[in-house]
Amino acid sequence: MSGFPKVLESTQDLSKGQISTLLSMAKSLKEGQNTPFFFDQEQRPFLATLFLENSTRTKTSFAIAALKLGAHYIDFNVSTSSLSKGENLEETLLTLKYQGVDACVIRTPNSNELDKFKKDPPLCLINGGDGTNQHPTQALLDLFTLFELGLDPQGKTVAIVGDIAHSRVANSLVDLLQRFGAKVIFCGPEECLPKSTTGAVMVTESLDEALELSDVIYTLRIQKERHTGPTAYYDSYHKLFGLNLNKIMGLKKGPVILHPGPVNIGVELSADVLKSPFYKGYEQVINSIYMRMAIISAMLGN
Amino acid sequence: MSGFPKVLESTQDLSKGQISTLLSMAKSLKEGQNTPFFFDQEQRPFLATLFLENSTRTKTSFAIAALKLGAHYIDFNVSTSSLSKGENLEETLLTLKYQGVDACVIRTPNSNELDKFKKDPPLCLINGGDGTNQHPTQALLDLFTLFELGLDPQGKTVAIVGDIAHSRVANSLVDLLQRFGAKVIFCGPEECLPKSTTGAVMVTESLDEALELSDVIYTLRIQKERHTGPTAYYDSYHKLFGLNLNKIMGLKKGPVILHPGPVNIGVELSADVLKSPFYKGYEQVINSIYMRMAIISAMLGN
Amino acid sequence: MSGFPKVLESTQDLSKGQISTLLSMAKSLKEGQNTPFFFDQEQRPFLATLFLENSTRTKTSFAIAALKLGAHYIDFNVSTSSLSKGENLEETLLTLKYQGVDACVIRTPNSNELDKFKKDPPLCLINGGDGTNQHPTQALLDLFTLFELGLDPQGKTVAIVGDIAHSRVANSLVDLLQRFGAKVIFCGPEECLPKSTTGAVMVTESLDEALELSDVIYTLRIQKERHTGPTAYYDSYHKLFGLNLNKIMGLKKGPVILHPGPVNIGVELSADVLKSPFYKGYEQVINSIYMRMAIISAMLGN
Repeated sequence: MSGFPKVLESTQDLSKGQISTLLSMAKSLKEGQNTPFFFDQEQRPFLATLFLENSTRTKTSFAIAALKLGAHYIDFNVSTSSLSKGENLEETLLTLKYQGVDACVIRTPNSNELDKFKKDPPLCLINGGDGTNQHPTQALLDLFTLFELGLDPQGKTVAIVGDIAHSRVANSLVDLLQRFGAKVIFCGPEECLPKSTTGAVMVTESLDEALELSDVIYTLRIQKERHTGPTAYYDSYHKLFGLNLNKIMGLKKGPVILHPGPVNIGVELSADVLKSPFYKGYEQVINSIYMRMAIISAMLGN
Repeated sequence: MSGFPKVLESTQDLSKGQISTLLSMAKSLKEGQNTPFFFDQEQRPFLATLFLENSTRTKTSFAIAALKLGAHYIDFNVSTSSLSKGENLEETLLTLKYQGVDACVIRTPNSNELDKFKKDPPLCLINGGDGTNQHPTQALLDLFTLFELGLDPQGKTVAIVGDIAHSRVANSLVDLLQRFGAKVIFCGPEECLPKSTTGAVMVTESLDEALELSDVIYTLRIQKERHTGPTAYYDSYHKLFGLNLNKIMGLKKGPVILHPGPVNIGVELSADVLKSPFYKGYEQVINSIYMRMAIISAMLGN
Repeated sequence: MSGFPKVLESTQDLSKGQISTLLSMAKSLKEGQNTPFFFDQEQRPFLATLFLENSTRTKTSFAIAALKLGAHYIDFNVSTSSLSKGENLEETLLTLKYQGVDACVIRTPNSNELDKFKKDPPLCLINGGDGTNQHPTQALLDLFTLFELGLDPQGKTVAIVGDIAHSRVANSLVDLLQRFGAKVIFCGPEECLPKSTTGAVMVTESLDEALELSDVIYTLRIQKERHTGPTAYYDSYHKLFGLNLNKIMGLKKGPVILHPGPVNIGVELSADVLKSPFYKGYEQVINSIYMRMAIISAMLGN
């Protein structure tokens, strides 16, 4: 896509027009009208993943997307890499570039780590999640999922439930939802609500209130690594902010429930919710492939 | 193959007719008559491996088989996966399914873990070894190897030597050998003999006796993880149940020696046996590729 | 290439004519005249990597080279392999061979470990670095880089700086430089200079002296694993044997600076050197792909 950024760090790096193009590319890929977005087999590009935090699910999603497009896929395994031998990220990326890698998906614990590559990017970079900052491809696939479910965000109410203050997924998603006209509710324990609530139409610690008003409930994953104490935390979290069928059944209209995965079953969502028609997390997984195919294809110039 | 199960957990999941078809598919793949079993390059399926126990050899064998057929291959690396983040196996398999994976080879320490997926399988599943229960693809390639060596099991005597009670390989193999008409001898230390010896024509603690009567000696791998004590165990095991050329040279007719690999050299088999013409373990490795190609192709509907 | 060895353990395994052919193959691959060296897609060979020491950079370089040629690529992951289950390297290589792998790149901490496979190689073997012995593909790509930079080694002076005594890179490189007519200077702390200095025109502990006389400075990587003490070592190393722009700016003519990577920034080379036009390490990375493509193609008979 002409004008598509070489570094996709934040949803803010894309214009609304570019996002709309990605949505329509993803849709046509899903419908099997793929030909114009596929890579010429004489000139197969290389996509690499460089994950400084574990995430097999996201990594596999990018790998499958790349292979389906006809690209080559390489996992640059960090635990065995020179990054643990004193080399810095910039040198690693330059190495990948000069080895012939065309685009790299980076996951890193450091927020805004890709900032420094925006001015003169060594190769195309896709943020696969950076600290508590952004996870733009997740939010883009979530937006695509809403459209696929017939839920144009314009005028809809979406509650984001959980640790919003520390969630890169929430940061990316709130930006997209607002730009596409949704009303956003923040719901979570007090310590998990963001200091700035710009753009939220409501901030509440009451899940019932959020449920009452929302078309969509987007539940965030509890970062277990933050809570090293007894499992009592999870029980009380589930009681206050987790969803189960009992809580939903009392509503006039059941909401669409989304989750970026993997779900802590019995914490954010009960097992019975996962089996219910309200849960659309599997649609997110399906759509993840097509949106990531669209992003890779747009970025590499198809 | 029409009627081929979507979950291959046990050799019992296959009819004798289906097994015969696999044998003839493997043979024609080995002879290079591969075309009808290869995947259309416009619709390359995805095979994933999900190994909860280490086994590079089996994983590589499946990877090569998939790539030779024209499928894509993805290793879902468990050590970095969401399975260690509180997600259960079912959710992981659903994720793979919705990401577009068509078949998954699972190795797990838990016997019968695939049972629960038989009723409504999320995607095609191949048991790559589950606890002490079954290892059906190993037994199928062993059966194929016998035929390739000109040893139709009908009427032949096969001694299985080692820790039969805890061996998934033995469980799968005994089933196939009996259904194809072989006489099976169990040979091993008392604590390694199975409680039920149904189907064995003889149970013995004497390797000499087993050697005297058998056309084929199938030696099982000592699971080192079970024996954490001094190496004295291995020395005494080798003396009583290991094979070396001295023990074989005294026989009227040397047996065909098989082993599922990797061999503990000097324990189950001496180095001189590996170099001898009696040892056909390398044939098993060669045939592993063609039998696994046949299984993948049959399961994915070619 | 007819007559190309099946085991490339050392630069000495290649005649000068074979090396010249590799150089011209790499050049034509770099220029995009690739067709005759590519593999027939009906008969894609399998290249495996088997790394008993970590090196993502070298592994990725071979993976990309193989995939660009149209070969399949498999990483035989040693940490999860049977090599850690009591199997020896020979049996592992035989397994790879019989599984259908055509060539294997081995990195090992044991010098000369490939010697034993030279007489009757189980499959094509490429030394990806063995202990302190040899790293022939690195030296070949370095030689190619010199030619690409317009620096025919004949009559040129190349200083090798660092721990020459323990460097497999230096061993391979010195051999090639001498055979192609370069004058070689050894420069490093006394304990890092090799006992035999055959072939060096000068041995010196003075970096200034080496800089004064050389067209090319080849800096070796400090093996951090050898120096577990305080970082003071690195500071004093950098002061005496590291390069920074100050040291270069005083020279009449700045040398070409090479490094096999990854650089310990601030130790062998300062950050300002990496950004300067003297540093040609990125050319080495670019050329690594084409030289390794040439080696794989020549070895597998194209």
